[in-house]
This record gives sequence, structure tokens and C-alpha cells, in this order.
Amino acid sequence: MKIVILGTGPVCQVLAPAFLALGHQVVVGTRDPGATMEVNLGFRRLTARHPALELAGFRDAVAAADRAGLVVNAISGPACLDALAPLAGSLAGHVVVDVSSPYDWSGEDAVLDPVNTDSLGEAIQRALPGAFVVKTLNTLAAEVMPDPDVAGQDHTVFVSGDDSAAKARVGDLLQSLGWRDVLDLGGIRTARATEMMLRMWIDTSQALGTHLFGFKIVR
Amino acid sequence: MKIVILGTGPVCQVLAPAFLALGHQVVVGTRDPGATMEVNLGFRRLTARHPALELAGFRDAVAAADRAGLVVNAISGPACLDALAPLAGSLAGHVVVDVSSPYDWSGEDAVLDPVNTDSLGEAIQRALPGAFVVKTLNTLAAEVMPDPDVAGQDHTVFVSGDDSAAKARVGDLLQSLGWRDVLDLGGIRTARATEMMLRMWIDTSQALGTHLFGFKIVR
Repeated sequence: MKIVILGTGPVCQVLAPAFLALGHQVVVGTRDPGATMEVNLGFRRLTARHPALELAGFRDAVAAADRAGLVVNAISGPACLDALAPLAGSLAGHVVVDVSSPYDWSGEDAVLDPVNTDSLGEAIQRALPGAFVVKTLNTLAAEVMPDPDVAGQDHTVFVSGDDSAAKARVGDLLQSLGWRDVLDLGGIRTARATEMMLRMWIDTSQALGTHLFGFKIVR
Repeated sequence: MKIVILGTGPVCQVLAPAFLALGHQVVVGTRDPGATMEVNLGFRRLTARHPALELAGFRDAVAAADRAGLVVNAISGPACLDALAPLAGSLAGHVVVDVSSPYDWSGEDAVLDPVNTDSLGEAIQRALPGAFVVKTLNTLAAEVMPDPDVAGQDHTVFVSGDDSAAKARVGDLLQSLGWRDVLDLGGIRTARATEMMLRMWIDTSQALGTHLFGFKIVR
């Protein structure tokens, strides 16, 4: 299928090659394609290794999206609402996979905003009322998202969203990446739960000295 | 050793018999012992099955505590600061195991208070400046705390606290209860991480239809 990834940072740089390897067509959207190719060295290297990867402005990338495919929000948390809101019309009817975290690193440590009584997943769904937003993969380091094998052990990826068909499509993609334990938490409101795990993710990564871990719901 | 449990609710009712079974002396502290025996049916049944269990007012229970033992805060989250603060003098030099959650159920759903930039664990440490507060077991249903075996699988219990010796004493107790994966997250500030998992705990329990699960850090 056709997958549009919005954002060219570390998450895009691990997801795009994984989607290409599965045989999907991948279009990447960015604010300014010329600037991305000039200053984003990681992304430029990615395009050199994967000539099939297409790059376009946000608006053109979304216009090229397929309603039978997926649009992935991989824009950094604090910036993504401003980038996504103007695309609301074009994104109507599309499944939007939100993998972002609402962290604010402007202080000495990450603080979540929104938190507790709202989530970025819900805010994105409100900004894109015609889209089917599915929150997932946001409890993991970028490098673990498309490669769930951690020391040969199974762990859990969570999905939150209001539309069952959209969650099923995302679940199929996750399984094709190797995820065996896909846990449907419920509506997009449950994005609060996975976003609030960011604090645990940061503290665990500091305690362990690695980003290569996952959360398994043992039951 | 001597373990003082403050609070007579569901957490006390599972921890007290588990500590007694390990051969510890257990004293339970409550606001009003007469009222507890009159209205708390679960606790009254517990004392009938375990005559060795001692019940006292908060102040007397803490006065009976041993600095080589432990004091467990099992008072409900919203009420515990008011109950603990007047005991600060007596609790100086003691290891205080905080298993509480800062949930506010007064609305239609649980909301955490404090959250994100503070935690109940830190607030308790500030209220008890001479005590060694260790946050633990707060990511689990009461019935799983002293019985970590869930479907024969290993999962993780977290400890947060500023004093290494206090954490080691708590870690020994956890291991004696059967916990094999005790993860030291760092200082009491990391109580923010485990307390913010309450939202994930609630949503997971609703998705699974059971309280009998745990979080495993797979690494």
C-alpha cells in the first residue's frame, strides 16, 4: 500500500526503510523539501540508500495519499498540531497513525503537555475531525518501532483509536513488522495512558543505560 | 522484622497476611481502631484469621515501629499526606515504603494529582524529611503485590528512593515475596514515572477485563 510519512526525523528514518522493505510505496512529507535535503544529513543519506523514497511538501505529500493506505504523523510532538491542522481537509477519510510524544524539553527535563486530562492523540483527532487517528508505537525508541525483537523476547505495542477498521489496518501493518502482541486499549482517549508512559520510558532508559527495551503486559 | 502498615484497606489486607506468613511481626495503624473493627468487615475478618495481627492508632503504631524494620504507607492516596504529616517526628530515621497512588476519583474517571512535575512519593518525602521514602508496588493491583506470579510469567516491580540502604532493605522484602525482577529506577523523583502508569494500569485492566497483570521491562 501507499504510506505517507509526515516528518523527516529519526522516526521517519527508521520507519521509511522498514515500510519499503515490506514492499510499500513511501512518500515523505516535510515543511520545505529543499531545506530538508540541504540540512538533514540523516534523511539525505536515507534517500541515497533508497532511491524509491519520494519527498514532497506536507500539502503535496498528503494530496498524494491513498485512503486505502496510511498517513503517519512522525513530526515532533510540540510542532505537529500546527503542521497538521491546515491539512485537515485533505486528511479527511484517511487513517492517520500518530506515533508522536507530547514532550516539552525546554526545561531541564521532559514535561508532558498535554497530560492527564487530555492527550496529543486526542488533540490531533480534534484537529483532524474527518480522519481516523490511531495512536501507536509511542512507548518505544524509534529503533525498536519497526524491529520489536529485543533480546529474543516478546513485548507489547499498544493501539488507541475510535475507529475499529482503522485500528485493524494499523494492527496488520504492526504484525507485518513482527509485532506479535498488539493490545487494543480502546478509544483515542486511551492515548493518555501510552503518552504518560513517556516518563517511565525516560527513567527506565536512564536506569538501564539503553533505549533497547519494551513494555510487556504480562497476563 | 517488625513491619508497621498504615491503613486498613485492600492493600493492607493483602500485605499483612503475606508479611505474617514470612514470619514478620505486623502492626497495623489506623485513624480510629474502634471504628475500624466496627465498620471495616474485611479487616475484622483478617484479624479473626490472624490473631497475631496488632491494631493501633496511627501515632501508637508508629511509636511501636522499629528503625531496623519498615513502615508501609497503605493509606489511600488523596488522604495520606494529611495522615502522615503529623507523624513526621516519629517517622524520622525510618524506612517508609509508599505504595499509594495519587488518584482522584471524584469526577467520572481517575485523574492524577499531583502529576508530571511532582509526585505523591516526592510530596511524602518532603512531608517526612527525616524518613527514607521508597516508592514501590504502586503499578500493580493489590492482589498482585505480594503474589507476583501471573500465569507463571516474570514481570517487573519498580523502586524509587533517595537512600540506597533503604531501597536495598525494601528490595530484600520484595525478593522474599517472590519478586525476581526488582528494577531500581533512581531517586524518589522517579516516583513520577510509576505513578503516571496508573492511567495505563486502568486502561489495560479495562481492555483485558482483569486486574491480574503486570508490566515487564523486556530488555
